[in-house]
Amino acid sequence: MSGGDGTMVLNKLVICGVGLIGGSLARALKSEGAVKEVVGVGRSEASLRRACELGVIDRAATSMADAVTGADVVVLAAPVAQTPALLSEIRPCLGGNTIVTDAGSTKSDAVAAARATLGNDAWRFVPGHPIAGAERSGVEAAKVDLYRDRRVVLCPQPGNRAEDVARIRTMWEATGARVSEMSETQHDHVFASVSHLPHVLSYALIAQILDAPDASLKFGFAGGGFRDFTRIAASNPEMWRDICVANRDALLAELDGYLATLGALRQLIDAGDGAGLEAVFARASQARTDWARQQEK
Amino acid sequence: MSGGDGTMVLNKLVICGVGLIGGSLARALKSEGAVKEVVGVGRSEASLRRACELGVIDRAATSMADAVTGADVVVLAAPVAQTPALLSEIRPCLGGNTIVTDAGSTKSDAVAAARATLGNDAWRFVPGHPIAGAERSGVEAAKVDLYRDRRVVLCPQPGNRAEDVARIRTMWEATGARVSEMSETQHDHVFASVSHLPHVLSYALIAQILDAPDASLKFGFAGGGFRDFTRIAASNPEMWRDICVANRDALLAELDGYLATLGALRQLIDAGDGAGLEAVFARASQARTDWARQQEK
Repeated sequence: MSGGDGTMVLNKLVICGVGLIGGSLARALKSEGAVKEVVGVGRSEASLRRACELGVIDRAATSMADAVTGADVVVLAAPVAQTPALLSEIRPCLGGNTIVTDAGSTKSDAVAAARATLGNDAWRFVPGHPIAGAERSGVEAAKVDLYRDRRVVLCPQPGNRAEDVARIRTMWEATGARVSEMSETQHDHVFASVSHLPHVLSYALIAQILDAPDASLKFGFAGGGFRDFTRIAASNPEMWRDICVANRDALLAELDGYLATLGALRQLIDAGDGAGLEAVFARASQARTDWARQQEK
Repeated sequence: MSGGDGTMVLNKLVICGVGLIGGSLARALKSEGAVKEVVGVGRSEASLRRACELGVIDRAATSMADAVTGADVVVLAAPVAQTPALLSEIRPCLGGNTIVTDAGSTKSDAVAAARATLGNDAWRFVPGHPIAGAERSGVEAAKVDLYRDRRVVLCPQPGNRAEDVARIRTMWEATGARVSEMSETQHDHVFASVSHLPHVLSYALIAQILDAPDASLKFGFAGGGFRDFTRIAASNPEMWRDICVANRDALLAELDGYLATLGALRQLIDAGDGAGLEAVFARASQARTDWARQQEK
């Protein structure tokens, strides 16, 4: 699995779900010479054909057995609701040192699915999450540098072999990403807060305006703040449906915390409490400015 | 007030509050040769001196009388809570054909302030709102093309002279903006929905995270969606405090509508209703995509 110069080379990489996330991983590893063959698995033949034409994958699998047999790494990059079914399909084909990982935005559900479906092969599953969404989706949107300077979270399990976790880490590092580890519970709360909740909030604003009698006037005068705030409301509905269902508990906890914060702001607005509002806004504004400065480093 | 070639030239323009909004107006009109002298009025001497150094204004006023006497147009571009006090200060200095306009994000309060303070001079006040915020503020951020291809809303009043409304329209058109008219009530609901509410929602997310025990972990893993969603949470706290207080009724109406929409989404998440969530997300995603396409035209 390693090249002569110490860099990792995968002989066979399988991507289940060749869209933005899986496709960009394939592109990045190919461009680094870190993979010899990329095999695609997917629901849509047309999309797999397109992935071949674009050079994102080398070939579409003829069956799951064809895909998984002899693979170094199998990456699940489909919407997360498909994880249990994909793992069940993959399991009978597993052998040798094949490692399975995923790229889903929720991790407790992936860990539970692996436990429920992989049985004695659960040691092979190293849960992962590249932090590189985009409002675009599909293989056409895949790009070689999607993961450059982005973060990837791995949630290693007690049953994982250390060398397998290291291999998945090395694979992501080859794309230019920085890899961290945390528990799946910690992960799910962090991303419920900074990713899943904002998506729900952004979708909700568009949904509210759509139902307003003056919707077209509102859309007509929406400016730059609205554009940025709602960019993520253009995200893939199926992907976000699955995330909301898969990460329900953590998302509800963050949403309820948010409703409490928003309720407090509502009271300040209702009371015309300028000083109270300014205190909240000033603290948030400073924190957001500091965050942006930190990100630039 | 008009140049020989039919374009408007203002002999004397007064900017009360020389920050991003007022400063960018001055820069744009100067660059178009549409103004001879720009006089600045402000709370901070240092800021006015800086505005002179940057060439945004020609001079700082020595008094409100010095500023307003002989002015063609006085533009209020300070945070909106200052509008009543500024109008009271301006009124005794008004004469000739001087028109007063403003650039505030809320209009019902400005109309009420003009009625309460300007008395017989209320005909001079033409309420306006350029749709060109930015998370940056202050005269250093002022730029010549801030209004190019942006929209400006005027809310003409029954007492206004048609030629005065036309002059303010022409002034904004000289900056490259497209000017529309609507009532102040309509304006305040539209902007409560597409601007003021998103700011409150964005500030609230940062406020919630700041109070979380795992705040630094959350900020550390926040990605591109978070960045866009919270860009407006870096906005000027004083300006947004004033907007929330000034536009309280419309903002509360929109906020309550939003809470209802969000409550419905919460129920779908709690019930694990994937189909219901996907329907809301898909409709919103399509609308946001259509909106973006429309904006590009």
